Amino acid sequence: VNVSALGEHGLLDRIARRIGPAPALEVWAGDDAAVVPWPHDRLLLTTDVLVEGLDFRLDWGSARDVGWKAVAVTVSDLAAMGARPRHAVASLSLPAETPVDVVDGLLDGMLAAASRWRLSLVGGDLSGASELSLAVAMVGAGDDGRPVLRSGARPGDSLCVTGSLGGARAGLVALQRGEGTAEGGEAGPALARQLRPQARVDEGVLLAGAGARAMIDLSDGLVVDLGRLMDASGTGCDVDPGAVPVDRAVEPVARRWGLDPLETALIGGEDYELLLTMEESLVAAARSSLEAMGTPLTRIGLVTEGAARVGGRELASWREESWEHLRPR
Amino acid sequence: VNVSALGEHGLLDRIARRIGPAPALEVWAGDDAAVVPWPHDRLLLTTDVLVEGLDFRLDWGSARDVGWKAVAVTVSDLAAMGARPRHAVASLSLPAETPVDVVDGLLDGMLAAASRWRLSLVGGDLSGASELSLAVAMVGAGDDGRPVLRSGARPGDSLCVTGSLGGARAGLVALQRGEGTAEGGEAGPALARQLRPQARVDEGVLLAGAGARAMIDLSDGLVVDLGRLMDASGTGCDVDPGAVPVDRAVEPVARRWGLDPLETALIGGEDYELLLTMEESLVAAARSSLEAMGTPLTRIGLVTEGAARVGGRELASWREESWEHLRPR
Repeated sequence: VNVSALGEHGLLDRIARRIGPAPALEVWAGDDAAVVPWPHDRLLLTTDVLVEGLDFRLDWGSARDVGWKAVAVTVSDLAAMGARPRHAVASLSLPAETPVDVVDGLLDGMLAAASRWRLSLVGGDLSGASELSLAVAMVGAGDDGRPVLRSGARPGDSLCVTGSLGGARAGLVALQRGEGTAEGGEAGPALARQLRPQARVDEGVLLAGAGARAMIDLSDGLVVDLGRLMDASGTGCDVDPGAVPVDRAVEPVARRWGLDPLETALIGGEDYELLLTMEESLVAAARSSLEAMGTPLTRIGLVTEGAARVGGRELASWREESWEHLRPR
Repeated sequence: VNVSALGEHGLLDRIARRIGPAPALEVWAGDDAAVVPWPHDRLLLTTDVLVEGLDFRLDWGSARDVGWKAVAVTVSDLAAMGARPRHAVASLSLPAETPVDVVDGLLDGMLAAASRWRLSLVGGDLSGASELSLAVAMVGAGDDGRPVLRSGARPGDSLCVTGSLGGARAGLVALQRGEGTAEGGEAGPALARQLRPQARVDEGVLLAGAGARAMIDLSDGLVVDLGRLMDASGTGCDVDPGAVPVDRAVEPVARRWGLDPLETALIGGEDYELLLTMEESLVAAARSSLEAMGTPLTRIGLVTEGAARVGGRELASWREESWEHLRPR
């Protein structure tokens, strides 16, 4: 049996079982970031790896973009816990023929993202390799010390999402079909969403304080990450597809390449928005606070005791269409 | 210009300059691990990446060995600061056709090493890739909070090394020349040294308390890592090659494959012993304490104000013969 037969989901489950359950008050594999004790305190720890050819292509954007994204997606894991990033290290694997300019660009992109989210890039490791890859590991801390897990949703909670969805996937489609790396014309906003993701750190911290009971970042697409939140919480949901905020960046790309905009928003990954649940009575106040920082908060459905459904259709059937890294494509 | 023209040393320097100097009381790129502040405390952060084909081959050992080594070499970075590991995350990149048994083996090896050095493996990330690689990032803490840096050596200090050298390189040679993965007969101890390295955590903590002024782990070979210690400290040294403790595992491999045992000990990497400096008057007490835990401590030379020399020959000329990952071999 090889890993493609298990799929990413199956492999992650298998690894989590092997690692075993976390002690009381700790969080290990199975959430956006791990939570571990530290004298007088606790800290959050997470890592993400980007691999050339699969997660990025240097001819699709600049090396700066890749460095930025490697940091941004790792920051997003901490944002999804309602925490802030503090320090990062990076492991860089690269072929001997990699131009030094590429290494400089990766570093500059990582440093720009580190500056944006006020963390320090403090070191790393180098290795040779036959393909370029970049693993970033990060330490973070909660503002009030209470991280928001994936497992806290309760039936009756409202299900909400920050910002808008589908833009990053539209950008990926534009790149795959040859829109290139130029300003991109109509596809420009979608390309920016794909190449230069933004992590919702201030939003995550605010939502943690505003009563978010469960939270996850949307890295692999709404239907996949929604499934993870529901599985971790042991709940179901009813999501109204008509309520899902579709990124305005999707429309021009969808028109040109024949995509369904709503499906792009539901299945597309890499938007790095936050999906969360909270008591219905708290949503209006959270929305006002978030809008004050320029970020929409949209109620897209309800947490239930039943199955997890989007538009009446069970998540499992949606997932088959969605992005899983290890499946042959 | 590509990275092979710069070499690993040149590239690391370039990256460290780009990252910039650390604030007061912090340590960033350029030591074994980074040291950063944490409320009421500080923590150490480090990462190492192993790449198939370059850092390991699955037909040379088991997947368990690779998982073990990925954790052990990262623990060693913390040992070299006189610190203990606490928590780790791992980024695993793997081809879709990787057997699930290999993933299980990697995890089991990581967990065995985590248990050995009493740290928790708390999560990670998965990605597809065309070759297998494993990046481990780790958080650690000093026993008394004062990490031992590379930069603390002073002229007049004694230069000492734990354990014995050359075994891991002898093991690599045996593997490269086809000794295989069986028990290995006479090469067995060398293979064990290469495939299942031991990190000197208790020794590092003890030495930090016993007055070690500068310390580094021997990952890339004595002449390379000695150069790093001297460069960081702005000092030179005189090392007596005759005093360097050659691993008994070297001799049978050297005899069979025509190696020079002393050169293997001086140039060979991956022994993960500790190289340190301390005042001459403190060496005897440190040696007794270390011997009580079964680990030899050997004085191999003196820190000077002059050039860095081994057997009267400057380090630069030794380095040309030594292992640098990014140089074509």
